[in-house]
This record gives sequence, C-alpha cells and structure tokens, in this order.
Amino acid sequence: MSGAPADPEPFPPFGVHASERLYDSHWCGLRRDQVILPNGQLQEYHVFEIPDAVAIVPVRSDGRVVLVGQYRYPSGETHWEVPAGRIDEGEAAADAAGRELLEESGYRAKELRPLPGFQPTGGISPHFVHAFCGLDCEWDRDPQPDPSEQIIVQDFSKQEIVALLEAGSIRDGFTAVTLLYALQLGLLG
Amino acid sequence: MSGAPADPEPFPPFGVHASERLYDSHWCGLRRDQVILPNGQLQEYHVFEIPDAVAIVPVRSDGRVVLVGQYRYPSGETHWEVPAGRIDEGEAAADAAGRELLEESGYRAKELRPLPGFQPTGGISPHFVHAFCGLDCEWDRDPQPDPSEQIIVQDFSKQEIVALLEAGSIRDGFTAVTLLYALQLGLLG
Repeated sequence: MSGAPADPEPFPPFGVHASERLYDSHWCGLRRDQVILPNGQLQEYHVFEIPDAVAIVPVRSDGRVVLVGQYRYPSGETHWEVPAGRIDEGEAAADAAGRELLEESGYRAKELRPLPGFQPTGGISPHFVHAFCGLDCEWDRDPQPDPSEQIIVQDFSKQEIVALLEAGSIRDGFTAVTLLYALQLGLLG
Repeated sequence: MSGAPADPEPFPPFGVHASERLYDSHWCGLRRDQVILPNGQLQEYHVFEIPDAVAIVPVRSDGRVVLVGQYRYPSGETHWEVPAGRIDEGEAAADAAGRELLEESGYRAKELRPLPGFQPTGGISPHFVHAFCGLDCEWDRDPQPDPSEQIIVQDFSKQEIVALLEAGSIRDGFTAVTLLYALQLGLLG
C-alpha cells in the first residue's frame, strides 16, 4: 500500500550451531537451538511450534458483530472472542476461516476480506495468524464446536464493540487485533 | 468503564485428571494435562508456560512514535515493533515497562498510561501482556539490548503509523494491538 514507511533493513540471521527436539506431538512442538550471536557467543534459544491459525471478525448485513463467549482452559477464564482456530494440514487459510466461522458461530460469510496478519508471540514462535473480516454473515445452523470447546454466541453493535475494547474486556489477543483492525479500516459500519 | 456489555457467564472449569511436566527451564515450561470435559471424556490439553510480559507504545512530546526494528530468530524476520519484554520475577509491570522501554529504545516516559492488556495465545497459554502507552517520552541514552537482540530505533508520525498498520507491515501482534489501542484511545495526537 502506498505511503507506508519501508520495513527496517533485515538483520543477518543468527547461525545455528545445534538444534535439539525437546517435544513433538500433533498439537505442538518445542525445540532448543544453540544459536550463534553476532558477537560470536553461543546462546540457547527455545522455539515453540504450533500450526498457523485463522481469526475472523463476523459482521452481519445489519452491521452487528458476532462474538463467541469461550472458556479457555489455560487461564480458566471465559471471555468474548472472535471465531478462531488452527489451520489443518494442507488447508488454505480462507477455507480454514470459513470452517472455523461456521463451527464456532454457526454463521457463513458472503465475503472473507483479508485483514493484516500477525505473529502473536514472535519472540518465541514463528506461529502466524491469518486474519479476516467476514462480510454479510448469515446464520446457517447451530455451532458445532469441538468437545473441548464451550461456547455461546451473541451479537453486538459497533458501539458495544468499542465499549468492550475500551473497557479492557477483550482479553484475547487475536480478538483485540482483528476487532481494532476492522474498526480502523471502517468495516464495522 | 460504563456502557460496556457484560462478560459472558463463566463456564465451569474443566476438572484435571492428571498433569505431567514435559519441560522446565528458566525461559519456558510445557505441561500435558488430562482434563475432564463437560461430557465426562478425558482429553489431552497442552499448556505452554512463559512469564507475563509488557509492551509499550512510546510517544514523544512532539507526537512522534518510537519503534524498534528488531530481528526475531523464530521467523528470521526483521520488522518494526514496540519495545516489549518479559517481566522479571517479583517485578511490577510498570517497572518492567520502564526498564524495557529504556533498554530497547533509549527513551524514558514521563507517564506510563495503562492500555488494555491481553493474552496473545489464550488457547494454549495463560501468558498475559500488560500494555502501556509511554507519554512525553524523552531520549536518555543509547539502547542497551540483550546480546541476542539486534535493534535499530526510528520515530514515526501518526500518519506513518496508520500507513504501516493498514499496509500489513506490523507483523508483531504485541505491536499491532498496542498501536491500534493507542490510536483508538486518541493517544497518538
């Protein structure tokens, strides 16, 4: 897009002296590399590996935004979130977005407009989130979350979304990024 | 803050049938729990543990925003980011914010205004980011990053920040969330 400042000049990558697999599973992996710092010293660097993900802001044709109230086991908390989830192996990001939107909210989007993507924890993982705004979303069927997901669905006005954000009630990072981008880009009406 | 919709009714937490430590280190931990789902079934749930973090949007008294161009080993990429880092044990979040701001950018803030915090990857970690906007930041000294950090410092106008965001050039999630909140709350002038 025109007018944006250039990215910083890329730094030369660290060399890799050694790499050790600490854990592997279907869900995640962990490795410990010995990297060669620019000053020549070796340093341990842990890298956490999880599949890339999608996050979708569902906007209905009446302008209301659909969020899911979702329980998260790691924190034990339940908050409002946008539908999101990992991309299956070989699956295109937009297909994963449509699938997760339908599974978690029961809605289908007429158009999945790409939003800027992001690395949620770039210091320890290359994990990347492909973000979308679902336009003209229409109710299709009851949500079909995974057995480990507890979800309720509710729709909100743009003013309510702004109030949730400004009150600090949006605790999920994927949700904060994508709702704020959708607001910034004028996609919430 | 008044006017924000209520949080969803909390779901009852999963029971924990068993918990196994997979990895422990100074930098991170990984455990595998057997949780009891609402339908009574057992399911594996991995939880990744890292210390909570801070992220700071540094705004100078002339309104310009200070970003650091930072190399990230997991992705091999160099992008513009806000100063950020983990909270040391026993350290208050605001103290960590002032420390990371000075170490990475060389600036000090007259005021550290809290922004809404967030969980970057709430599905797999309780990791929480305390966010701040540093107001009236003044240059103090050269940055003193860790040996594993490669950093350059540059300042941007509000219009350039908006252009970077809308172009998708802000790849770091901490940076996208905090810059977008600072814009939304009118803290970038």
